[in-house]
Amino acid sequence: MITQLDHIGIAVADMDAAIATYTQLLGAAPTSVEDVPTERVRTAFFKVGETQVELLAATSDDSPIAKFIAKNGEGVHHMAFRVTDIRTAIVQYQKDGFTVIGDAPRPGAHDTQVVFLHPKTTHGTLIELVQLSQ
Amino acid sequence: MITQLDHIGIAVADMDAAIATYTQLLGAAPTSVEDVPTERVRTAFFKVGETQVELLAATSDDSPIAKFIAKNGEGVHHMAFRVTDIRTAIVQYQKDGFTVIGDAPRPGAHDTQVVFLHPKTTHGTLIELVQLSQ
Repeated sequence: MITQLDHIGIAVADMDAAIATYTQLLGAAPTSVEDVPTERVRTAFFKVGETQVELLAATSDDSPIAKFIAKNGEGVHHMAFRVTDIRTAIVQYQKDGFTVIGDAPRPGAHDTQVVFLHPKTTHGTLIELVQLSQ
Repeated sequence: MITQLDHIGIAVADMDAAIATYTQLLGAAPTSVEDVPTERVRTAFFKVGETQVELLAATSDDSPIAKFIAKNGEGVHHMAFRVTDIRTAIVQYQKDGFTVIGDAPRPGAHDTQVVFLHPKTTHGTLIELVQLSQ
């Protein structure tokens, strides 16, 4: 059902500085930089082989990313796997005992549908499921 | 210089339970489970597209993974990028201002050569560079 790693999401405090660092590290500029107002974050995506690194910076003090950094500091925030059919995946993972946050998919970056599995059911890692738009 | 994401390393407290969870999540059993005595860890690798998920569990109380979990709980420990020439990469990244831990590559799992970049120079994420054996 999972076909590949879509991206790794990294929470950063200073987006401009982090873009400069990851551009140097990965050898290429981000393929997109965009705000997601509903999540109060700015995102920057870098292509690495078939997957991507996503930098996430808060655009407001009440952003989930601001809260994450206040608690944990900068670092990996989630990993996102691509699925072919997110609604089927939700039903299956719930049956398997994973806690699906919110129960239904919602719009993600780049016209995707996404949902998250709670870290308490995945040994500590926030996991995103991503279905590309159809 | 970086060609792809080699793997994401996740620190777990109970390897057997984590293998069961990730086998269910990813839809396939691990491709390898092996101890790395020099690091005092057991590792389990799962293939996901062109990349891998690596579970890491301590095999001793003084393992770096035991210390990581005591401080942070379970969760993502590092991400590893594949490079074609690790010695050239080390020189370049040092020149670019990244802190390379240990300065020289050392043996990793599966007959690789690896080195780590310190999180203080990568916005909080421990990054491993991996060169496949030649």
